[in-house]
Amino acid sequence: MQFEVEVNVMPQRALLDPQGRAVKNTLQQAGYQGVVDVRIGKHIVLSLEANSEDEARQQVNTLCAKVLSNPVMEGFEYSIKAL
Amino acid sequence: MQFEVEVNVMPQRALLDPQGRAVKNTLQQAGYQGVVDVRIGKHIVLSLEANSEDEARQQVNTLCAKVLSNPVMEGFEYSIKAL
Repeated sequence: MQFEVEVNVMPQRALLDPQGRAVKNTLQQAGYQGVVDVRIGKHIVLSLEANSEDEARQQVNTLCAKVLSNPVMEGFEYSIKAL
Repeated sequence: MQFEVEVNVMPQRALLDPQGRAVKNTLQQAGYQGVVDVRIGKHIVLSLEANSEDEARQQVNTLCAKVLSNPVMEGFEYSIKAL
């Protein structure tokens, strides 16, 4: 079975997000006064082969925790759908 | 009113995604054989002040098209919710 997984990897809320802060300041200086806060992370779309959704979830949990995110500084969430 | 907007900015499907390809190859070499394809983009979370949802959507469309994405190489999608 093939699955499509959409993963969001974001900086931990408690940590400073320099990239997000830089973009926020730039937007406000460019006149976008409505922008209150900006946080920037990665959006990763994976196509996976697995025998079941459970097996696909296990693969994704391992991939996200060990490779696609830095658990010290980032958190992740994902959605999964069978193709 | 305050709105939270989640934006995904991804490389156009027709274009080569070197970052995604590099991660895919690394994952496969690391033994994650189930990984068929990887595409990587940006996940941006905005907090916006606007008088209405329509006004917020107009702000977001302008922000995404002019600042947060490169229309030549990237596409964007977003979801919006009132806080």
